[in-house]
Amino acid sequence: MALPKVYAGQRCSLSRTLEIVGERWTLLILRDAFFGVRRFGDFVAHLGVPRAVLTERLEALRDADVLAEVRGTHGYREYVLTDKGLGLWPVVRDLLSWGDEHYSPQGARRVFQHVEDSGLLMPDGLCGVCRALVDPSELAVLPGPGYDEAGDDVVSQALLGAHRLLEPVRGR
Amino acid sequence: MALPKVYAGQRCSLSRTLEIVGERWTLLILRDAFFGVRRFGDFVAHLGVPRAVLTERLEALRDADVLAEVRGTHGYREYVLTDKGLGLWPVVRDLLSWGDEHYSPQGARRVFQHVEDSGLLMPDGLCGVCRALVDPSELAVLPGPGYDEAGDDVVSQALLGAHRLLEPVRGR
Repeated sequence: MALPKVYAGQRCSLSRTLEIVGERWTLLILRDAFFGVRRFGDFVAHLGVPRAVLTERLEALRDADVLAEVRGTHGYREYVLTDKGLGLWPVVRDLLSWGDEHYSPQGARRVFQHVEDSGLLMPDGLCGVCRALVDPSELAVLPGPGYDEAGDDVVSQALLGAHRLLEPVRGR
Repeated sequence: MALPKVYAGQRCSLSRTLEIVGERWTLLILRDAFFGVRRFGDFVAHLGVPRAVLTERLEALRDADVLAEVRGTHGYREYVLTDKGLGLWPVVRDLLSWGDEHYSPQGARRVFQHVEDSGLLMPDGLCGVCRALVDPSELAVLPGPGYDEAGDDVVSQALLGAHRLLEPVRGR
């Protein structure tokens, strides 16, 4: 059943937020943006998202000032997280952590490491070494004990080793 | 466009998680569950969610072991968060916090207070006084500076003052 775009009687900030990010594809797109994916074709290759859906979601995220459209190398159109978008990192991190805890019996599929002290992010979101909340720009993502993906797209390949968050991942 | 229930090529824990909580109504239902709402009719009254949608969402959350169905006072069927469901608190908290920051110019609509030391939760999710991560059971929710709801349902009324999270809110 279709959801109303604005919830009757629901003015809380969660409702407002879910109008922006309350689509499953949207959160996967945002996760990939934190991984450094910037280009339309790379989102398609990594997520398998239908192109029409991706177009619509990227437009909505740009209109909401979560992603900005920029001209990248070779004049490609690229989408990068704005400061407002970067503020969604805790949501993405906590959703991943909860999913790993309950749906990945071999352990986390990807782990996040605080670059400065090599501490791994714990399930509570803090660095296991310095116990600080770490900005995504100070984190690297790497395959964890439950890693079982084997995509041959450029994003999957770039994420086979340690990769600093937000550092661009680009296809040719 | 309908989303496939399982994402092609997407085995990451975020995808798995979004299969469970990636519906906007679902996250609003979970928020209300943290507020202490337990009964079908109270969710309807507070959220304005269509009954058929609520039935389907509660069933899915019960099947995923996020909510448990129990017999409450007077034999009413009630839905309570399981341990697994309680683990979603950081997600709900961070979504609310992000929404308040960007869509509530008067300040947070609701604030969360660490009962033990009266510290307010900061945007980073830590207690402003002891700087600890606080379990939802140790938090109270109260109207914040941006509060502007005025529902006359039992849940809205119960949340007009300070209300401890998870403490049952029940209609007659």
